[in-house]
Amino acid sequence: MIFGIDDLPVRDELRGKSPYGAPQLDVPVRLNTNENPYRLPEELVERIAERVREAARDLNRYPDRDAVELRTRLAEYLTDTSGHEVGLANVWAANGSNEVLQQLLQTFGGPGRTAIGFEPSYSMHALISRGTGTGWISGPRNADFTIDVEAAVRAIAEHKPDVVFITTPNNPTGNAVPPETVLALYEAAQAAKPSMVVVDEAYIEFSHGDSLLPLIEGRPQLVVSRTMSKAFGAAGLRLGYLAAHPAVVDAVQLVRLPYHLSAVTQATALAALEHTDTLLKYVEQLKAERDRLVSELRALGFEVVESDANFVQFGRFDDSHAAWQKILDRGVLVRDNGIPGWLRVSAGTPEENDAFLDAVRDLTKEQST
Amino acid sequence: MIFGIDDLPVRDELRGKSPYGAPQLDVPVRLNTNENPYRLPEELVERIAERVREAARDLNRYPDRDAVELRTRLAEYLTDTSGHEVGLANVWAANGSNEVLQQLLQTFGGPGRTAIGFEPSYSMHALISRGTGTGWISGPRNADFTIDVEAAVRAIAEHKPDVVFITTPNNPTGNAVPPETVLALYEAAQAAKPSMVVVDEAYIEFSHGDSLLPLIEGRPQLVVSRTMSKAFGAAGLRLGYLAAHPAVVDAVQLVRLPYHLSAVTQATALAALEHTDTLLKYVEQLKAERDRLVSELRALGFEVVESDANFVQFGRFDDSHAAWQKILDRGVLVRDNGIPGWLRVSAGTPEENDAFLDAVRDLTKEQST
Repeated sequence: MIFGIDDLPVRDELRGKSPYGAPQLDVPVRLNTNENPYRLPEELVERIAERVREAARDLNRYPDRDAVELRTRLAEYLTDTSGHEVGLANVWAANGSNEVLQQLLQTFGGPGRTAIGFEPSYSMHALISRGTGTGWISGPRNADFTIDVEAAVRAIAEHKPDVVFITTPNNPTGNAVPPETVLALYEAAQAAKPSMVVVDEAYIEFSHGDSLLPLIEGRPQLVVSRTMSKAFGAAGLRLGYLAAHPAVVDAVQLVRLPYHLSAVTQATALAALEHTDTLLKYVEQLKAERDRLVSELRALGFEVVESDANFVQFGRFDDSHAAWQKILDRGVLVRDNGIPGWLRVSAGTPEENDAFLDAVRDLTKEQST
Repeated sequence: MIFGIDDLPVRDELRGKSPYGAPQLDVPVRLNTNENPYRLPEELVERIAERVREAARDLNRYPDRDAVELRTRLAEYLTDTSGHEVGLANVWAANGSNEVLQQLLQTFGGPGRTAIGFEPSYSMHALISRGTGTGWISGPRNADFTIDVEAAVRAIAEHKPDVVFITTPNNPTGNAVPPETVLALYEAAQAAKPSMVVVDEAYIEFSHGDSLLPLIEGRPQLVVSRTMSKAFGAAGLRLGYLAAHPAVVDAVQLVRLPYHLSAVTQATALAALEHTDTLLKYVEQLKAERDRLVSELRALGFEVVESDANFVQFGRFDDSHAAWQKILDRGVLVRDNGIPGWLRVSAGTPEENDAFLDAVRDLTKEQST
């Protein structure tokens, strides 16, 4: 008998669980993890090598624990793109927005506390809650994947959660949440507890609408979380950040691991931020491709959720896993998030999207014969 | 009135706390955080730039979630230096050994569970326990900073902790823990619960003795944690790792954040591992300098703890903080770990150590006048 996980004294709630993560399969067209399909431009690659070389000379020293230069540049980016002025004191950064969210839950959630999200949504919210000992409450959503404001407000009043997650644009469904909804949920959360409201804007750069960042003004319990994984085409960099009242930034520093952000991560992120204009041009291309996916999928007869992200939720399938497999058999990897009847496809390059559309066209032909 | 941390709904145990971390002061000689004083050799700096450039080309993609190449190379390093064969399945890596320890506590500690350490020791063990909701038990230590085996075994039997931390060489005192002690504590921990025993070997490469890595054979509840911050001269890289039974490596993957290790971190660590032989030569120089610090401090009349690390604990001072300030006034930053009567100095370059010794010589002159 092989000694395995369950022979170790792991926490009860981990028994029988599997590690989170989409299959990393080696297929020609990977449209399953909402990555940006465009490789970094060669001049940025060179700039990264240059900044990392510089940082590597001092690698024997601990990195800047407070990542002051990086947070300053992130604040400038947020100010430039949102029109709302934020500074160093408003911004915090970590290894991916997952670590940002983990720090928020360690600070404001944790044992004896709860968090709520409106599902289906980004599944890491529930998983990081579990990982930090925070009770998870699965809040409601309408059949069309919009948030049912009345039901959500009721759920907040009833459960009095310590942390409320709102993902906009929502993942995996792609739809943005209107500011009025966020404000209504924020008011409900303050009336109930008061609790923290975390607006997860990982995909906001792809939205038809604006960031909700200006809402942090006068609302110290509102946090906006962001990432460089998508719009900056830097999923491999693992750089997430948040903008909030300075007290929130002070508070997460009570739980952050010291020197959590390596010198090479800081150097690479700074190089990418120097190339913001170039990288945001790819975002425009991806938005156009995303819109094309929506309209072509509809033309093929699929039901498609309105998308403000770099991915599209489409259906409906009697057996979405079988459909996922058939698309994979044609060399295209999309995502089955376990939502019955639906699949999610990331917007790729025009060629990748063509390959995907060909694959689903085959599917519709099969079904109609 | 300024809105601050305490106006937010932070967890009660965080109220009134300050972020962990030594002062990052800009002084000529920094001997306070056990960094390796030697900059990376220029050929390694170039190799890092090269590998990062290569990784940056695919930065739009998520990194290898399982860090297979890196863990394989780390396993080879451990096998080569300990004589005990370990492989990919035995090794796990994260952003600094702090994150490794956090993942271990999320898996085996957490709400309703406890961890014990024998203090004074690495203070992050207690802090990460708090951050993961794990109850902390401060175990005893002898006046000479060795572990009182009988008292430690009694404490384990009494408290039945879920996780036992043993730091060897101990930080901040520098002394190594004999293998018999680790085995006695392991047996006690198994009899009491069974619980996990984490041997923190962050400084093992500087020891006169051997790594306890071979002890993991047949002991699936024993984990050895390591770091590239010290011996590899790469504190800025934030790369920690562990070696243990494969079931432990499987278990921590249930709590690790997906894609926690960035592509640039993996690339940089791989470059450093190519230069292991060069880097370990610096370790030999530092060991000689550490031994010199011990003997010269003793010759100056200080009490000095036997050191197997790249730092030296010395005393005693009536007012260790005043002594710390006087040494700082002479341009040398050492560490006051809050242990009454004692200070800690990291072994620097010969010139840095001379500057330090001059500073403390002034101190002794002051006291004798």
